[in-house]
Amino acid sequence: MKLGLFVEPYGRHVAAWRHPNATRQAGVSYAHYRDMARMAEAAKFDFMFIADTNNVWENMDFYSRSNMGAILDPLQLLAALAVSTERIGLISTTSTTYTQPYHVARTFASLDQLSGGRAGWNLVTSMFPGEAKNFSMPKQMAHEDRYERAEEFVDVVLGLWSSFERDAFVEDRATGLFFDPDRLHVLHHQGKHFAVRGPLNVPQSAQGHPVVVQAGSSGPGRELAARTAEVVFTIQQTLSAAQAFYADLKSRMPKYGRRPDQLLVMPGLFIMAGRTESEAREKYEEMQSLVHPKVGLSLLSNLIGGFDLSAYDVDGPLPELPQTNGGQGHQNALVDRAIREGLTIRQLYLATVGGRGHWELVGTPEQIVDQMEERVLKGGADGFNVMPPFPGELKTIIDLVLPELRRRGLFRTEYEGTTLRDSLGFDLPCHARQQPEGIAS
Amino acid sequence: MKLGLFVEPYGRHVAAWRHPNATRQAGVSYAHYRDMARMAEAAKFDFMFIADTNNVWENMDFYSRSNMGAILDPLQLLAALAVSTERIGLISTTSTTYTQPYHVARTFASLDQLSGGRAGWNLVTSMFPGEAKNFSMPKQMAHEDRYERAEEFVDVVLGLWSSFERDAFVEDRATGLFFDPDRLHVLHHQGKHFAVRGPLNVPQSAQGHPVVVQAGSSGPGRELAARTAEVVFTIQQTLSAAQAFYADLKSRMPKYGRRPDQLLVMPGLFIMAGRTESEAREKYEEMQSLVHPKVGLSLLSNLIGGFDLSAYDVDGPLPELPQTNGGQGHQNALVDRAIREGLTIRQLYLATVGGRGHWELVGTPEQIVDQMEERVLKGGADGFNVMPPFPGELKTIIDLVLPELRRRGLFRTEYEGTTLRDSLGFDLPCHARQQPEGIAS
Repeated sequence: MKLGLFVEPYGRHVAAWRHPNATRQAGVSYAHYRDMARMAEAAKFDFMFIADTNNVWENMDFYSRSNMGAILDPLQLLAALAVSTERIGLISTTSTTYTQPYHVARTFASLDQLSGGRAGWNLVTSMFPGEAKNFSMPKQMAHEDRYERAEEFVDVVLGLWSSFERDAFVEDRATGLFFDPDRLHVLHHQGKHFAVRGPLNVPQSAQGHPVVVQAGSSGPGRELAARTAEVVFTIQQTLSAAQAFYADLKSRMPKYGRRPDQLLVMPGLFIMAGRTESEAREKYEEMQSLVHPKVGLSLLSNLIGGFDLSAYDVDGPLPELPQTNGGQGHQNALVDRAIREGLTIRQLYLATVGGRGHWELVGTPEQIVDQMEERVLKGGADGFNVMPPFPGELKTIIDLVLPELRRRGLFRTEYEGTTLRDSLGFDLPCHARQQPEGIAS
Repeated sequence: MKLGLFVEPYGRHVAAWRHPNATRQAGVSYAHYRDMARMAEAAKFDFMFIADTNNVWENMDFYSRSNMGAILDPLQLLAALAVSTERIGLISTTSTTYTQPYHVARTFASLDQLSGGRAGWNLVTSMFPGEAKNFSMPKQMAHEDRYERAEEFVDVVLGLWSSFERDAFVEDRATGLFFDPDRLHVLHHQGKHFAVRGPLNVPQSAQGHPVVVQAGSSGPGRELAARTAEVVFTIQQTLSAAQAFYADLKSRMPKYGRRPDQLLVMPGLFIMAGRTESEAREKYEEMQSLVHPKVGLSLLSNLIGGFDLSAYDVDGPLPELPQTNGGQGHQNALVDRAIREGLTIRQLYLATVGGRGHWELVGTPEQIVDQMEERVLKGGADGFNVMPPFPGELKTIIDLVLPELRRRGLFRTEYEGTTLRDSLGFDLPCHARQQPEGIAS
């Protein structure tokens, strides 16, 4: 079982910053992130994962009461953490909708160098309509257009990452040859969305190139992932939904010449652990009591693609929602849950402020690990992106849940190697192996 | 006198990587850069400065024999150095021609947080025509269009950096208010090139926001610098040219409501120091002997805006050059020099492979400091971006030249404070001072 730490400065719960143990200014405190990274590394987590958006803030009722402000650009943060850690993987989100593939390829290749081969790029297409307003676009690109662009974007990035063969930089002082031009492959990409000549001026890292991570759940999102992703961060809450997603995604891979074990499905997982079930429940209810009503309602609206719920009775059922242009994975999962459990709007927002759309487990280590084990053994996941609810809970998870996972032989006790690919059990990418004088895979 | 260290992995000289003491793979070795940064910090340099381009490589005779390949993205590198140093400023180049202002504002504001207020953004408009080919543009934007875009770009970045007042993040756990919405100023920029709503989700740093650095020497470049730059990196070689540039630039400031001391002019300066003049000359000639002829000619072509010189007699004079769309500062300085000194093409490329267009001083500490002192006292510069020629020469400069500067009272012995603005003698920017409950400037 693979475990990522889903990094949020205060924790996953929307009211986590109000916890008495919270670090003030945690979102911009490098020391805070560094301590978190070292704790996760000591516990042998596969990677740290930072989600990200560049959304505008239109709903001040929500933003002024949440901890979304005062955070660092994740790539800046990971570069600093790269030189302060030694084994843990470092994954960050960058959208393909508002960036240029040359920049993305260069930034992540550089992070991969700084970290000795521990970088991962989480490709998203930006689900929130408001993000367009920070990038001089009159409105958000349509869902299918975003994915069409993303398909070409990832090909350009992978092509740029293959610019130099592994042994291209000969640095021959006697003849004055710095690199062998025969081992350089200029991309010359000409496509519908991009024309990128290359080459990229960064050599291959110890793991060849960064691991490609994706998070889309729509049809086009799954197709892109089946073709190019190595890790998929996803959101299904029930075993049956998780199994269906898992089977569907892996079944799409063979037509791209890929084996199912070349892609790891890792849903988000909010864990509130206690030595007893009642201890865990008490901590959970303590956090729920800190949720401001305006925050709860705003958050739910955001998760269903920006649809405004303020005109509806909060103690009535969720209305029928229009198909939105936003992220369809979150919306479908929430609507399914409201119908399944017969929740009102208020009950749904209180049920989602913890995991914010992700699966929640509250209980003892045995109860939690039973569920995690079942999901992996029954084909619903290859691992999880662990979301500690609030300050102190990462340590609780490490102290209580990880020993139970290890007792059952479900999680490593030592890192398998030095790179993120080593931890995830992946070979070097093809272009890093198929060299005249290539290294063993 | 202010001193920046112009960072290049092997050194300024085009053949520096062939030096016997060069670190292999220096361009991607974090430890190498970290050691350089700590040495410069111990010597109390104001900042490290990283120039950057995203140019394509079309001339393999040059690129395969130079050390332009195998380098890290400068923003990734500086983020790592930010947490490995304590006082030295960290300045990197990012072009306004191929990026979005929201990304640039966020990245540099994050670096400013990570470093405790030591970041600087060197704004360039990308002089090399080939850069467009990496960013899906059929051809380079015209010079005047690049500057028009840059003028608006810098206003957007400065506006985003002013999103939050200094005391906006109240983190009031009792009421649940994370920040005070009245102390947030949403930009709502609507211009010819950009529509950016904001706000930026990064608080002010210890120095308010990053220092703005520029490098353009053309008319539009000077106008932009006079209005918005705090440091100008420039290239004039002779005292008279430096005085003319300095006086011209500072004379343009009052109409923007700025005082001349709010901008520091810091030319590049290649220093080859020896305990005797002959020792310095010998080191210089040793490096010149390592210059591959194809490299010298290619480099000169690049510096004059991409104009191909291969059809001309290398032992004849420089031909009359057409006005190019590239960087005009370099071209003018080189043509002036060829005429002034009566140089052939070969003599000009050999004369430029060291400083690559920048002023070169070769000699004893006394000889070098005489020249530096004269240039500052006679109104040609406020300081210099020091370019060590090859490995080991940063230490030589620190050991020989800095003591002579200090003996004459021209350079600090201790940092004045903790931020880059403290070192440069700047107040906090206006928006960081003009607050209802603002801190003292």
